[in-house]
Amino acid sequence: MLKYIKSCISPELLKVLMEMGHSDEIVLADGNFPAASHNDKIVRLDGNDIPSILEGILFLMPLDTYVENPICLMMHGEEVERPQIWKEYEELVTKSENVFKAEYLSRESFYERAKTAYAIVTTSEKALYANIILKKGVIVEG
Amino acid sequence: MLKYIKSCISPELLKVLMEMGHSDEIVLADGNFPAASHNDKIVRLDGNDIPSILEGILFLMPLDTYVENPICLMMHGEEVERPQIWKEYEELVTKSENVFKAEYLSRESFYERAKTAYAIVTTSEKALYANIILKKGVIVEG
Amino acid sequence: MLKYIKSCISPELLKVLMEMGHSDEIVLADGNFPAASHNDKIVRLDGNDIPSILEGILFLMPLDTYVENPICLMMHGEEVERPQIWKEYEELVTKSENVFKAEYLSRESFYERAKTAYAIVTTSEKALYANIILKKGVIVEG
Amino acid sequence: MLKYIKSCISPELLKVLMEMGHSDEIVLADGNFPAASHNDKIVRLDGNDIPSILEGILFLMPLDTYVENPICLMMHGEEVERPQIWKEYEELVTKSENVFKAEYLSRESFYERAKTAYAIVTTSEKALYANIILKKGVIVEG
Amino acid sequence: MLKYIKSCISPELLKVLMEMGHSDEIVLADGNFPAASHNDKIVRLDGNDIPSILEGILFLMPLDTYVENPICLMMHGEEVERPQIWKEYEELVTKSENVFKAEYLSRESFYERAKTAYAIVTTSEKALYANIILKKGVIVEG
Amino acid sequence: MLKYIKSCISPELLKVLMEMGHSDEIVLADGNFPAASHNDKIVRLDGNDIPSILEGILFLMPLDTYVENPICLMMHGEEVERPQIWKEYEELVTKSENVFKAEYLSRESFYERAKTAYAIVTTSEKALYANIILKKGVIVEG
Amino acid sequence: MLKYIKSCISPELLKVLMEMGHSDEIVLADGNFPAASHNDKIVRLDGNDIPSILEGILFLMPLDTYVENPICLMMHGEEVERPQIWKEYEELVTKSENVFKAEYLSRESFYERAKTAYAIVTTSEKALYANIILKKGVIVEG
Amino acid sequence: MLKYIKSCISPELLKVLMEMGHSDEIVLADGNFPAASHNDKIVRLDGNDIPSILEGILFLMPLDTYVENPICLMMHGEEVERPQIWKEYEELVTKSENVFKAEYLSRESFYERAKTAYAIVTTSEKALYANIILKKGVIVEG
Amino acid sequence: MLKYIKSCISPELLKVLMEMGHSDEIVLADGNFPAASHNDKIVRLDGNDIPSILEGILFLMPLDTYVENPICLMMHGEEVERPQIWKEYEELVTKSENVFKAEYLSRESFYERAKTAYAIVTTSEKALYANIILKKGVIVEG
Amino acid sequence: MLKYIKSCISPELLKVLMEMGHSDEIVLADGNFPAASHNDKIVRLDGNDIPSILEGILFLMPLDTYVENPICLMMHGEEVERPQIWKEYEELVTKSENVFKAEYLSRESFYERAKTAYAIVTTSEKALYANIILKKGVIVEG
Repeated sequence: MLKYIKSCISPELLKVLMEMGHSDEIVLADGNFPAASHNDKIVRLDGNDIPSILEGILFLMPLDTYVENPICLMMHGEEVERPQIWKEYEELVTKSENVFKAEYLSRESFYERAKTAYAIVTTSEKALYANIILKKGVIVEG
Repeated sequence: MLKYIKSCISPELLKVLMEMGHSDEIVLADGNFPAASHNDKIVRLDGNDIPSILEGILFLMPLDTYVENPICLMMHGEEVERPQIWKEYEELVTKSENVFKAEYLSRESFYERAKTAYAIVTTSEKALYANIILKKGVIVEG
Repeated sequence: MLKYIKSCISPELLKVLMEMGHSDEIVLADGNFPAASHNDKIVRLDGNDIPSILEGILFLMPLDTYVENPICLMMHGEEVERPQIWKEYEELVTKSENVFKAEYLSRESFYERAKTAYAIVTTSEKALYANIILKKGVIVEG
Repeated sequence: MLKYIKSCISPELLKVLMEMGHSDEIVLADGNFPAASHNDKIVRLDGNDIPSILEGILFLMPLDTYVENPICLMMHGEEVERPQIWKEYEELVTKSENVFKAEYLSRESFYERAKTAYAIVTTSEKALYANIILKKGVIVEG
Repeated sequence: MLKYIKSCISPELLKVLMEMGHSDEIVLADGNFPAASHNDKIVRLDGNDIPSILEGILFLMPLDTYVENPICLMMHGEEVERPQIWKEYEELVTKSENVFKAEYLSRESFYERAKTAYAIVTTSEKALYANIILKKGVIVEG
Repeated sequence: MLKYIKSCISPELLKVLMEMGHSDEIVLADGNFPAASHNDKIVRLDGNDIPSILEGILFLMPLDTYVENPICLMMHGEEVERPQIWKEYEELVTKSENVFKAEYLSRESFYERAKTAYAIVTTSEKALYANIILKKGVIVEG
Repeated sequence: MLKYIKSCISPELLKVLMEMGHSDEIVLADGNFPAASHNDKIVRLDGNDIPSILEGILFLMPLDTYVENPICLMMHGEEVERPQIWKEYEELVTKSENVFKAEYLSRESFYERAKTAYAIVTTSEKALYANIILKKGVIVEG
Repeated sequence: MLKYIKSCISPELLKVLMEMGHSDEIVLADGNFPAASHNDKIVRLDGNDIPSILEGILFLMPLDTYVENPICLMMHGEEVERPQIWKEYEELVTKSENVFKAEYLSRESFYERAKTAYAIVTTSEKALYANIILKKGVIVEG
Repeated sequence: MLKYIKSCISPELLKVLMEMGHSDEIVLADGNFPAASHNDKIVRLDGNDIPSILEGILFLMPLDTYVENPICLMMHGEEVERPQIWKEYEELVTKSENVFKAEYLSRESFYERAKTAYAIVTTSEKALYANIILKKGVIVEG
Repeated sequence: MLKYIKSCISPELLKVLMEMGHSDEIVLADGNFPAASHNDKIVRLDGNDIPSILEGILFLMPLDTYVENPICLMMHGEEVERPQIWKEYEELVTKSENVFKAEYLSRESFYERAKTAYAIVTTSEKALYANIILKKGVIVEG
């Protein structure tokens, strides 16, 4: 553990976040996501939900402001209303980045995108619609 | 994830628990425990507290009934009253094993014991007095 | 060994089952299946037959209910009547999943499918027609 | 699989048996034996009992005739009568070697001996008193 | 060494033969064959000739009876008469399999086939025309 | 790079700092320190001086307040006056920890201590008397 | 450290520079460059800026004189005037090579080129337009 | 060192030469050749020139007599007269093989050919036109 | 294969022989020798007898002339007359070294000596009394 | 290759020299030295003699001036006069360090010292009395 680092951010995840550069993407996947068959670099965070990990990451890592949508969410189809977990994400991202701009991908497109991500973080998140991809931005003052 | 396995029990931890035999010991260590300098086999469960892991382990792994004390706790010195976390442990163990028999070790003895354990599980547990060692018992029906 | 885990489920197999996500597939192969030349991840369970392994897996892992056929069987050609081992499989699956929906593949198609599976479990099963592929479902409560 | 090799003898076990030389020892351990903490070379045969493995080994590997007792059994203390599993062992060994000469060790001595063995085979044997050590003999005609 | 296993069959080769399944192929290559540049899995048996290895393999491994030619030989071109080493092979195979059915490949085709084999065994065989590929059959009773 | 993390703190160093627990020690060594012959875990930070690394570490990692001297410095012998680099260290530590309590070791003792440290960070620091050991404290809020 | 080698040149970087041959390329990347996702061989030099590394490299490694432009720079688009860091590069290269001939690539082309480079050196350089590729020349007298 | 083996032939090179089979090729590259970016198997022989290595290799390894040109040389373009180093090569090869038959490749073709070679030996040869590829022949009496 | 190297000398053995220096020892062990439990470096030469390997080694490697007995043989006890295999060894060594000076060790001493040898070569030698240790001498002209 | 680095200094040796710190020792061993049995870190420089390597090292690495004898030589016993190779060493060292101060060790002491060295460089040096140990000094300006 270290000061300012949330306890759910493991040493391995922190190392991965630091090694990522501008435009590299990281997937935060729910507990049922087929992570190991879609990427070689897997960071397991069993027992944690995505919002707490997201908060820990956003504290340290800015999102990409050079693209329109630095966030990807996975749609399951005919959603009637915006899922609660997306509202949580929106709140956390807005707090950190002032804005929340997301791209919405079908399951197939999301899976394809996950294959080219820098890493996938597996969690025990149980909410539906919870999978999310973050694109890293530029650090001005390291 | 699998049915009946708590989500905080990672694949690696489950594999370790299965490979352990009768009388092998596992340490559940708080977030400040110097784990990597006391054992070669480390299972990290960042972001989790010990009681939820303990509950997940006890569901699957019986404690040793051939020794007087299959549990070790770490004393910090002149404790005035029994810490709250110990009461939680006692409740969880009693629910699973009907009885709670613990040995109390000084910090130095606990550290030495950790060196010979089968593995150390690192957690983000914040409570004081939370370090605990479990000695595995016999599985009658696998 | 652990409580509730059948003794034929090895630590390595359990770890593999946990790491698999929704829609990942696992092959249970008979003793003559050319496993190592069709997949990089091989779990050997020499000396065991498939029904006992299947029972151990189904206790822990739900099948995929989002696809029509979460099970694949391998046809050898002009079978006159349903092989005995398929009846065993049907019984085991129905007991666990209430329903048994299988796709039937030719030997060539089955081999191709095995190449993209998450893992192949090699057994000492001697029955003909015994090769089977399971597609993992969603865990609601981990 | 190969002709003449029992299906419970895995490729890895067969390789280990071949690499062993005159006087090297192998432990067949029951399902609760703390194998991984007593030896670096572990061959797992989950789901198998010891008699069937023993029979498969004895078909291929002679016992040492240069020592008085090429077999070690583990006593648990004040056994009243000879356990059934020992009778099975005696029958299997006598069939292969014409004679059954065993040394009886206390649990502590057996554990110490296991540390210096060439390898430990972990099984799912459930019988008590089932742990056994075999000392390899000389192959005259390879 | 083990009983019934010819001394020229190394532990590594035995393990490879066991891991092979129905229809996997193994190449027995003469001393000049460019083995390491044609396959990743190489078993070296320096100092041995192919007939003695072939005899050791055929004792343990049946050939495939589901294909027309479970054996491949390499032609060097306009052979006038059947090479002596092929007669040796025919005798050994017939003794074990009752029949000898071989496919004859050009050097280029043989090299291509070797790339997809399960493994190549390098020997010190000096006879011309000695390279041979065996396709593994089904083990009925393991 | 990440927000709040000084750019001289490499991903590997950050991972090491996180894995360290209460009472584990880390050595910041000057450019001539024989690091690789005194510890197995080496983090190279070529091109950096110690004060900037120290500042980056102290921002994230508290020093141990349970021991009298959480800092070790290496004396070279008959120093007449306090070296400038020690004053820099004192300022940095005091800013972060409010107090600066250091133990002074001879070269031999310092080298011995370095062998049991969790890791050694090699730098390009050129100042004399610059070697320093930090003992990690307790993180209350991770 | 060694004589004549700048302290920011790490042992690993020096080894990489030596192993490179005529026409191999090395990328010096700023702190935000997505290095690990564009090349397998990464040399991290956290805490250092590019000009000091460039100076250290040019002292040891000549640039390729057989191609028109042994240097690549990355354009970000409509630069109005030549960035300051390019002037620094020009000065350093001219001092060592007498001439400064650079190719200017778009971000996409630069990224593609980085994938085929021999290695990428990651730095903490903060200047914009700082990414640079060097093509190694011929050593006449080693 | 061994009798009859020139001291410039390293243990690793000797092992590589032995593992090569009929028609496998080995590149002897000058000090500026970009070896590591053109082949995965690299044998470094720093400090040695090519003629002495060539002599050591030819003593042990015959060239291929089944192809027209078992030797490849690299042309740099409009050579006016035959380089001195080629004369050395011709003398060495003729002494060993009675004949010197070489194919002459452009730089691009030579580089492509090097990619498919069994290995590249890097030397400190300084002569121009010195790169050479040898195709291994058949050993009749091993 | 290479010219002058006997075909039973494998690439790995040749590499080991070259890496050995003056006074390093190598064990040639019969088929029943417990090699893997007495040394970490094992070179397997299954299917070969010791005299042919010995001849291949002696052609390349001189014995140590600085010690009284560069050869060790293993006594089994009350040998009545000199075993035939020792006469073979004597003939081979005398042919190469002009003299045959051997030390005779008990089984226990031989086993201890094998532990400190540079490597053990396992063979399929069936003769009794065949184990032999060679101490490498000085190469004057490499 | 790089400018200023002698071609006999391999990339691996240069990396080792850089990683060494003040007081670490490196052994330059003749062609018969039993290097691999006396140290885990071996740098092979087959085909090179020690004086040329020594010259390359001394150009980059200062010797330790804090000890009386930063150089160790190996005596073979009753040398009548100073060997020629020592005179070469003296000349090279004096040119670089202005002074030549050596300790003379017996063969046994030299071998023991080599075990604790940072690395051993194996060469093809043929001169007697050529083994030499260098103790690294302090780099003031890196």
